[in-house]
Amino acid sequence: MAESASTVQNGVNVEALLAAREALTNAPQAAQFKWRAACEWKDGTYSHSTVEGFFGLGEEQRRKTTFNFDADHPEVFASEDKGATPVEYVLVGLASCLTAGIAAVAQHRNIQLRSVKATIEGDMDIQGILGIDSDVRNGFGGIKVSYEIDADAKREDIEALVAQSQKRSAVFDIVTNPTNVIVEVR
Amino acid sequence: MAESASTVQNGVNVEALLAAREALTNAPQAAQFKWRAACEWKDGTYSHSTVEGFFGLGEEQRRKTTFNFDADHPEVFASEDKGATPVEYVLVGLASCLTAGIAAVAQHRNIQLRSVKATIEGDMDIQGILGIDSDVRNGFGGIKVSYEIDADAKREDIEALVAQSQKRSAVFDIVTNPTNVIVEVR
Repeated sequence: MAESASTVQNGVNVEALLAAREALTNAPQAAQFKWRAACEWKDGTYSHSTVEGFFGLGEEQRRKTTFNFDADHPEVFASEDKGATPVEYVLVGLASCLTAGIAAVAQHRNIQLRSVKATIEGDMDIQGILGIDSDVRNGFGGIKVSYEIDADAKREDIEALVAQSQKRSAVFDIVTNPTNVIVEVR
Repeated sequence: MAESASTVQNGVNVEALLAAREALTNAPQAAQFKWRAACEWKDGTYSHSTVEGFFGLGEEQRRKTTFNFDADHPEVFASEDKGATPVEYVLVGLASCLTAGIAAVAQHRNIQLRSVKATIEGDMDIQGILGIDSDVRNGFGGIKVSYEIDADAKREDIEALVAQSQKRSAVFDIVTNPTNVIVEVR
């Protein structure tokens, strides 16, 4: 279908994204982004994090809002459950990344979405983080994401949407492939 | 130093964690946890996620609170910036995981913390997610975490705290090593 004929409205400005792709193809240095957060320890396992600016399109980018996040461990770990656990933040990141991708790909493919809901679950053997068994990893043994999607499309087209979203998802890549992390003390 | 002689108060109940380690060593099936989130698409790249219960210690665990999270893309991506980006959620998860670990290890080592602050930055070449260059990964090229720690300890002991926290961090493992992710459409 020609894009100009589209009456699909998923709220994603695909034309702007295609224009950005075109512009960045000719100016790859503008595609170099830096995403940031700051974290401050409060007490015990409780910390507060903020997300504000980032760098991209060759300059510092400011936002209207500062986003605030509390993280903690739950009461079964003798903590106070003042926020989601750090690993739950990763699950939120993965689910929201795939969901945004589904909306963007649907818009591009002229598929009207009515509702998109995901549940995500990560298995963890906490013998790893507790240092009981060094053969057990600290992180998730595996993650399962399950989508329920109501859209103006055949099931195979909906499955193809989800597959394409995975293929372009930043967080899916971060979780499924290794990333180099440097931790320093100033 | 003997733990009984400790006057260090970082707010982490190390005795309870050591007791849990002891108990779970004898009952490894209780160490099998499932962490969860639910995500609902709102409009465009904007979604709302919730974190509530989890499974662990052999049963469903409820919380007093439901944690709520908005995720979106920023205005430079033609979105409405209604929440942090998914990749920033990963940064919050990593920083808060390492920070909780630093507090726990410090308590265990009888080191009084006064303040712990982290900044975290992930580099991303968005030619990956935009599909401009298939050799560019979608996720972070690398992540740098920088700690500023004021504690009743020598610099080398502070550096050792941070190193031990990395060694036991669930999110550090998730980001630096691959995890299998299954995405299904129900």
